[in-house]
Amino acid sequence: MKIDIIGRGNVGTHLARAFKEATEVNIVNPRTLEGLRRDADVYLLCVSDSAIQEVAEKLKKHIGRNTILVHSSGSTPLSVLRGLTRNTGVLYPLQTFSKDVKLEYSEIPFFIEGSDVKTENILKGMAGLVSAKVYTANSEQRRNLHIASVLSCNFVNHLWNLADGYLTERGLNFEMLIPLIRETARKIERVSPHEAQTGPAVREDGKTLESHCTVLESEPELQDLYSLLSMSIISHKHKN
Amino acid sequence: MKIDIIGRGNVGTHLARAFKEATEVNIVNPRTLEGLRRDADVYLLCVSDSAIQEVAEKLKKHIGRNTILVHSSGSTPLSVLRGLTRNTGVLYPLQTFSKDVKLEYSEIPFFIEGSDVKTENILKGMAGLVSAKVYTANSEQRRNLHIASVLSCNFVNHLWNLADGYLTERGLNFEMLIPLIRETARKIERVSPHEAQTGPAVREDGKTLESHCTVLESEPELQDLYSLLSMSIISHKHKN
Repeated sequence: MKIDIIGRGNVGTHLARAFKEATEVNIVNPRTLEGLRRDADVYLLCVSDSAIQEVAEKLKKHIGRNTILVHSSGSTPLSVLRGLTRNTGVLYPLQTFSKDVKLEYSEIPFFIEGSDVKTENILKGMAGLVSAKVYTANSEQRRNLHIASVLSCNFVNHLWNLADGYLTERGLNFEMLIPLIRETARKIERVSPHEAQTGPAVREDGKTLESHCTVLESEPELQDLYSLLSMSIISHKHKN
Repeated sequence: MKIDIIGRGNVGTHLARAFKEATEVNIVNPRTLEGLRRDADVYLLCVSDSAIQEVAEKLKKHIGRNTILVHSSGSTPLSVLRGLTRNTGVLYPLQTFSKDVKLEYSEIPFFIEGSDVKTENILKGMAGLVSAKVYTANSEQRRNLHIASVLSCNFVNHLWNLADGYLTERGLNFEMLIPLIRETARKIERVSPHEAQTGPAVREDGKTLESHCTVLESEPELQDLYSLLSMSIISHKHKN
């Protein structure tokens, strides 16, 4: 299978590494399109969401009759590729990619959408070269998965960034939280997040909540987040 | 070392298990105080923050001259035990405890405070029976560690709970996020959370942020959190 990956950011770099282990991959600069192969089986766009349409338009005059034009974005519908070529699709890897952090590619869930069943099956086969976790998902499902991944990964990492800053400013060390963070993540592989919830908010421990909010007077951004998330925990306590 | 653990909640249950592997532990019901030993080396209070003072007062007439009266709360100052007996202290385990989830106790960081150096050293020795990660921290440092742990564990777990609810209501499965969550936690053991940040907010990808906020119109609580956390990510992008 010949794959041209267009884009050299975090996602492009990692997908190129992942597919190189199994098949023939070519990385293409989206500005120059140098080295693009007319006979590639797949053009896989790994550019920012806002650039997908523009780069896809540029590809239109190069693309072979049987090449599938594919993007890898969670929140961009397949329809943005409509009319550019016959076979289009999406291959969305649900993972956090940083260039310098190695990944176990076989664990990444891939969500596939194709303009028709045949295309979808080719893309599922392609994802299967890397991972055993290959699913189909339409554009709406994919956007919902993307929203859930923003909550579960990007926002979570930001809370760790805030905790890091908070401790560092007070002469304490983020390293001390690592065993807690490791256990927090490990726990939800065994019990649901609803069952795993601990802390002052779920205990409705008003004394501690108040004491924390008072300490955070000097950090209005943290105080807002603290209140909003604590109230949300309390309101979800009796759900599920 | 004779330890009487007063309290049978999540923390008491786990600390009893942890110390039982190394020394002589007795679990005491905080209501009846049945089985309390006058010659114990340590009374370790593992009750809710709001009950510490009341239970400690009840212990006053039972406590031996050399017994150290200790609580295990992050946000309660040592001073609440002042005047009840000669030797007082705090032993704060920085971990998330759920009764039914097993833990590797040797990885738990313990933060110790004592009414005097000798007491502090005894408590450090006691924590050392379980863990190699034993630190001293005064009441202010401990409260700051507790606030950081609420951000890093309780709020993080709640975001996973929200993602679980969001996906389940849409016929999707939280299980699909597990590899992402695993990697999100793994990553910050290698790079700082500031470097690890990914997602639409840090890319300032307005199109995706707007699309997600529109989808979340029907979920006002999630929409508020989404906006607040995304703005916070953008405002922290150029810090550190």
